[in-house]
Amino acid sequence: MMETHKLEFATKGENDILNITEHIQNVIEHSDAHDGSVNLFLQSTTSSLTIIEWEPGILNDFRNAMEKIAAKSGIYEHELAWHDGNGHSHVRSGILGVSLSIPFAKRKLMLGEWQQIVLAEFDVRPRKRTVIMQIHG
Amino acid sequence: MMETHKLEFATKGENDILNITEHIQNVIEHSDAHDGSVNLFLQSTTSSLTIIEWEPGILNDFRNAMEKIAAKSGIYEHELAWHDGNGHSHVRSGILGVSLSIPFAKRKLMLGEWQQIVLAEFDVRPRKRTVIMQIHG
Amino acid sequence: MMETHKLEFATKGENDILNITEHIQNVIEHSDAHDGSVNLFLQSTTSSLTIIEWEPGILNDFRNAMEKIAAKSGIYEHELAWHDGNGHSHVRSGILGVSLSIPFAKRKLMLGEWQQIVLAEFDVRPRKRTVIMQIHG
Repeated sequence: MMETHKLEFATKGENDILNITEHIQNVIEHSDAHDGSVNLFLQSTTSSLTIIEWEPGILNDFRNAMEKIAAKSGIYEHELAWHDGNGHSHVRSGILGVSLSIPFAKRKLMLGEWQQIVLAEFDVRPRKRTVIMQIHG
Repeated sequence: MMETHKLEFATKGENDILNITEHIQNVIEHSDAHDGSVNLFLQSTTSSLTIIEWEPGILNDFRNAMEKIAAKSGIYEHELAWHDGNGHSHVRSGILGVSLSIPFAKRKLMLGEWQQIVLAEFDVRPRKRTVIMQIHG
Repeated sequence: MMETHKLEFATKGENDILNITEHIQNVIEHSDAHDGSVNLFLQSTTSSLTIIEWEPGILNDFRNAMEKIAAKSGIYEHELAWHDGNGHSHVRSGILGVSLSIPFAKRKLMLGEWQQIVLAEFDVRPRKRTVIMQIHG
């Protein structure tokens, strides 16, 4: 069987990181599928999905690393043409990615003890974000 | 149902980025599956798949970021041993990745407004590239 | 059909890279599925899965690039709070990722000639690692 759900999230803009694990787990608990995979797909070019431990220090370390990969203060051709201030956001999203696939069993995500599913906002202003969640059971 | 397709692409070598969205969409339109996920897998160790906005400035910003992560002019042990000039290409591909999973509904990719599927060539010469496309519906 | 397997690996700690391709191929050969996708999910926040050519120079070049992205000698807020020495390991894992999806046909992984599936250990000490392997055929 295959089920598709659409989840909506609101971010506070740059450097906001949302823990969306409970939202995903909640949909799975009410799914018709007992075991399978959930594919998450974020419809965005200036934010990303990843898995990380939910510890404030790690979240800041992750933010600092993304700043090093594509600094907000860097020079971006996108910026020179469009002046919307998010050249670095596009680069970060393209490198980190927007899709994840996670197994579940007995309607429970098979995450490691410390793994949390996060949506990392890289854009410079608050955004509404849509995650397509597809369950293959 | 499950369908497997093989798509072939030709790149012009280093820094070429192909927009393959229409090719993927076209196969889905003629698939037996109405709704599902498409898994893309690039059979390569010196190029990658990702999703990005198709804007010339962003593509150059992305190229610059990959150059920062693994500079062409850097020193690579692979290069010292094999002299094929693509040590940086292997590193970039290993970091960026070769697989994507994208949902579709009513035979249409569920991409965000600005999302395009791209094949980024990191190798130093023109290459033929194969993408395995698997539809799970 | 859908099958779930659990594979266990032991790493020697930081910078160890395991080639797990044969382990995955072996499970597929004994699967009930003839064709399909295998989803791999590593239950960890301080190590990653990726695909790379298995050549000693490339492995070292990859290690060097990860060190550049998140240096072991860098300053990490996680480290200042927890003193377990693996702030950089969390950042690397969050950036590189823990999931892969690979197609197979006639019970053989459809990998490119040089592609190998690897588990990259970023943590500072030897670890036991679990990979959930889900076959969708």
